[in-house]
Amino acid sequence: MRLRNKPWAKEKLAQYPQYAVGNPAEHKGKWNEVFGNDNPIHIEVGTGKGQFLLGMAKQNPNINYLGIELYESVIVSALDRIIEAEVPNFKLLSVDAKDLTEYFAKGDVERVYLNFSDPWPKVRHAKRRLTYKTFLNIYEQILIDGGEIHFKTDNQGLFEYSLMSFSEYGLLLKYVSLDLHASDFEGNIMTEYEEKFSQKGSRIYRSEVKYMNEK
Amino acid sequence: MRLRNKPWAKEKLAQYPQYAVGNPAEHKGKWNEVFGNDNPIHIEVGTGKGQFLLGMAKQNPNINYLGIELYESVIVSALDRIIEAEVPNFKLLSVDAKDLTEYFAKGDVERVYLNFSDPWPKVRHAKRRLTYKTFLNIYEQILIDGGEIHFKTDNQGLFEYSLMSFSEYGLLLKYVSLDLHASDFEGNIMTEYEEKFSQKGSRIYRSEVKYMNEK
Ligand SMILES: C[S@@+](CC[C@H](N)C(=O)[O-])C[C@H]1O[C@@H](n2cnc3c(N)ncnc32)[C@H](O)[C@@H]1O
Ligand SMILES: C[S@@+](CC[C@H](N)C(=O)[O-])C[C@H]1O[C@@H](n2cnc3c(N)ncnc32)[C@H](O)[C@@H]1O
Repeated sequence: MRLRNKPWAKEKLAQYPQYAVGNPAEHKGKWNEVFGNDNPIHIEVGTGKGQFLLGMAKQNPNINYLGIELYESVIVSALDRIIEAEVPNFKLLSVDAKDLTEYFAKGDVERVYLNFSDPWPKVRHAKRRLTYKTFLNIYEQILIDGGEIHFKTDNQGLFEYSLMSFSEYGLLLKYVSLDLHASDFEGNIMTEYEEKFSQKGSRIYRSEVKYMNEK
Repeated sequence: MRLRNKPWAKEKLAQYPQYAVGNPAEHKGKWNEVFGNDNPIHIEVGTGKGQFLLGMAKQNPNINYLGIELYESVIVSALDRIIEAEVPNFKLLSVDAKDLTEYFAKGDVERVYLNFSDPWPKVRHAKRRLTYKTFLNIYEQILIDGGEIHFKTDNQGLFEYSLMSFSEYGLLLKYVSLDLHASDFEGNIMTEYEEKFSQKGSRIYRSEVKYMNEK
């Protein structure tokens, strides 16, 4: 993702605390208070400009969505979408995925979405892939028992790697599609990257994996 | 596979007992005697006309290969190839995969190959797929601890199904390629179906899974 320098991004996020969560560590173990209800919380890690979660939030009003994105300069575009759409069940958090356990307690999250995560194709960068075992361990520490990861990508190498990483970690492969847009999967919400790559003719891969209680 | 009626097939197989194994139940637990050495035994279930195992047997003289095929009228073509090539480490067995435990004891086999298995696309026929859990259980009963299944197919639906079935059964996904012929996998031997379908432009999928001792 090309990053434009947007010095005003931090300030703008601070102006909308009802949408862009500040001080996330304060909400650890009680994220339901942030949303004002006890609906399940689904997060997207690397949410970019928020198109996917905006669509999901409209489609599923009884789920709370939280978009996690490293860069304030990127997530500020998601903020604009939320302001315009006035959805109550979609909020934003600008933090690094590697620190999620500082902000979430075991069971705070019901599902993790990963969409078009950076592929890091070089083997020596494998640890940075959001499906590397250290990240699978981080998600486990914040998910409910039996929590799930739903993952989409156009990147064949990342998808192959991730299927192996999930298996090695002991996750159950509940669902896999090797050509999502030609499959009978219903209600798919396209991400920004998904629109771009599928227009170019790339196949989209999708999987759902589940943490098993007995490990 | 189109089956031509070949009443002479049974007779021809009987004429070459050094290649086409008769009375397989007699060899249960001592298949090494059939090959006359203690090299590991790899079987292909649904071997068709034997092109894959012939190539493998030439490539790997220290592995013994056994082609399992339901139809005598099909396997007789594999017999012709063996007679011509005079390979000592490739033999044939015409039996049904569902009966393998009658002929093999735990540990007789080191690896199972499945290549372009019949897809049985209808859900009500799922039990017939050679990667259905009852077959995974049969293979487990004849494989060594830590034995593997190596699986290739052009059929996307069968491959998706099989990845889920392997995961559900607790097998470790050691390797997966979603486009074998564009991958860096070396030493690939093409099967008859693989040649046919890849010429038509179909992608070939490939996976290696391993039975874990602690289940
Ligand atoms: C390729 S973009 C995909 C964006 C969006 N999910 C989509 O499908 O269109 C990946 C996003 O993940 C973010 N990202 C990468 N590593 C991250 C991390 N460790 N924590 C949070 N976000 C991260 C990047 O900043 C980028 O916005
Ligand atoms: C589609 S063909 C593939 C042949 C070959 N492996 C290839 O890749 O070219 C599948 C083969 O599996 C055999 N087969 C199907 N079910 C079987 C079973 N239960 N036991 C043994 N062979 C079986 C069929 O007779 C057929 O020859």
